[in-house]
Amino acid sequence: MAEQFFSYQHLFNFTKSIFKKIGCNAVDADIATKALLSADLRGIDSHGIARLSGYVRLWEAKRVNADPRVKIIHETPSTAVVDGDKGLGLIVAPFSMQVAIDKARRVGTGWVSVQNSNHFGIAAYHGMMALQHDMIGIVMTNASSTVAPTFSVDRMLGTNPICVVVPAGEEPAFVADLATTTAANGKLENLQRKNQPAPLGWVQDMNGNSSTDSNELKKGGALLPLGGDREHGSHKGYALGAVVDIFSALLSGANYAPWVPPFPAYLAMPAVQPGKGIGHFFGAMRIDAFRPAEEFKMHMDKWIRGFRSAKTVKGHEKVLIPGDPEREMEEKYKIEGLPLLESVVEDLKKLAGKFDLPFS
Amino acid sequence: MAEQFFSYQHLFNFTKSIFKKIGCNAVDADIATKALLSADLRGIDSHGIARLSGYVRLWEAKRVNADPRVKIIHETPSTAVVDGDKGLGLIVAPFSMQVAIDKARRVGTGWVSVQNSNHFGIAAYHGMMALQHDMIGIVMTNASSTVAPTFSVDRMLGTNPICVVVPAGEEPAFVADLATTTAANGKLENLQRKNQPAPLGWVQDMNGNSSTDSNELKKGGALLPLGGDREHGSHKGYALGAVVDIFSALLSGANYAPWVPPFPAYLAMPAVQPGKGIGHFFGAMRIDAFRPAEEFKMHMDKWIRGFRSAKTVKGHEKVLIPGDPEREMEEKYKIEGLPLLESVVEDLKKLAGKFDLPFS
Repeated sequence: MAEQFFSYQHLFNFTKSIFKKIGCNAVDADIATKALLSADLRGIDSHGIARLSGYVRLWEAKRVNADPRVKIIHETPSTAVVDGDKGLGLIVAPFSMQVAIDKARRVGTGWVSVQNSNHFGIAAYHGMMALQHDMIGIVMTNASSTVAPTFSVDRMLGTNPICVVVPAGEEPAFVADLATTTAANGKLENLQRKNQPAPLGWVQDMNGNSSTDSNELKKGGALLPLGGDREHGSHKGYALGAVVDIFSALLSGANYAPWVPPFPAYLAMPAVQPGKGIGHFFGAMRIDAFRPAEEFKMHMDKWIRGFRSAKTVKGHEKVLIPGDPEREMEEKYKIEGLPLLESVVEDLKKLAGKFDLPFS
Repeated sequence: MAEQFFSYQHLFNFTKSIFKKIGCNAVDADIATKALLSADLRGIDSHGIARLSGYVRLWEAKRVNADPRVKIIHETPSTAVVDGDKGLGLIVAPFSMQVAIDKARRVGTGWVSVQNSNHFGIAAYHGMMALQHDMIGIVMTNASSTVAPTFSVDRMLGTNPICVVVPAGEEPAFVADLATTTAANGKLENLQRKNQPAPLGWVQDMNGNSSTDSNELKKGGALLPLGGDREHGSHKGYALGAVVDIFSALLSGANYAPWVPPFPAYLAMPAVQPGKGIGHFFGAMRIDAFRPAEEFKMHMDKWIRGFRSAKTVKGHEKVLIPGDPEREMEEKYKIEGLPLLESVVEDLKKLAGKFDLPFS
């Protein structure tokens, strides 16, 4: 498929204008735009500007409140529950991560569970807020159900990512951000667009048989938990996805399991809603609540260099540190501009037309 | 292989006597015995009494201090670093988990990183200490390196388990306890004993090729991170194992990565030692630091029942909740007694002889 390149600034101005058009104030529009476009910059294009029209459709369906009163509804010295007031997750998440950071500053760590929110883009963006404070950042979110637990044909969990961000010294930070499935849904969608099969272990059909059909989800199939099948540890991926659901939604009062609202606005809301909106979880741990930050970072550098210099399997150039590919992508895209698929460009042009804005 | 059944009380008395013989006081011997045998009760026999002689050999090699002064060496309201003073992890871990629980009682959550410790048995035993306080328990530990990160032939990480324990209401607690590898080393050892091949995706040979040889570790091969290979998400298992290493050892000042001391006393200590002993990480989160415990438990029951009643793949009877198999094992073994392999019984008899104790 053809791609077109756009400067970050161009996409930033456009996206911010759209968020303002739907009723975000200037500060919120700025925050939401940075969060959304961080996905494109880091090469996770499934979660970036390609979803902008989807966010707008959620607003049109009155599922997103563009002017939310995001607030703490319960707290202790190290914890809080935040009500996102149906706001964009792109705004609710930075607010909540900041609450975690503030608590960590005072008592060593901060832990925030969030209800009544929407999709927040990529977890790593929010987790990386911790870095400038010499803190470890932890981010999770649940999502609408696409994943079958081990031995089941029912979709009971979302791709429920876990993100852990750790500061280093001279080395770049450690940034792990992973869906608790064998492959993220975005990767499957890429194969669908190209009409290519999926590797075994990514999806199952509606009867629970392994399948290489990348369109299996549309036919009643499901994504598989990390591990793929029982013999290869899918019960572990299932357990990790479950933990994300529990921390994000059962602690906060959001919807969980198969009852999480879907991202596409055209899909019906689940009939049962045991909570409010979707749920997130944020953690911040001050390094010097454990040991001096400089000492820790020196050891993180040693850790990272140890892995970087590990002997590779023949045919592979180097051992990667979590976050390496995305950071390299970001360095490249900042210079070369961001590549958008033709279909995404068309979608943005339609969006521009709807709000009487220029996009070229 | 032939098995012999023993009552829990019989094994308890014997194990406690051994711990007292190596110099543990009566209270510590009791704590260590309960922790060790919880593995056998829960069917994780690789981590239970089969390792008793291994712990004794570590003590003989002066790598275990049977009378440690376990203490907090740094703390904030929600965090602590504990120095295990080379004690048995079986004692250091319950001490540290209690510190986490005490902090959670005061400020909502407690997080404890531990240096200078040894192997602690199964993580779930320590995590389950949180349940009686209506808290979520989190436990991690690093271990000597047997696992190659994605694209590498070097063993850089241990099987580094993650355990999360969540209280429910009428339903039994959710207890996830998982090595961040495709399969735990204990499962591989079972195949070795039976001279059976391993499924592809569990191990690689010394050149990094997938292998079905269950003896591959003895030939310079390595265990594979959860996911098995890059296409199936091994970089995620690697990242999770890395997080466990960082939280357990880099926050505390324990050894990490390939420099973690091995469990078998006959193996040489790593030449480089950037820290002290092995490291653990413990967390406790008070449920009512987020929402009323009764409300949370009602939703956990709904969550659990939702999964239990999910439609199964043909040929499978039910969808399991993490912790189900181990709990069922424990109920059975408490009545029927614990099965020990002949080789384990022989080993215990030798141990009995060494300390002039009866074992039959």
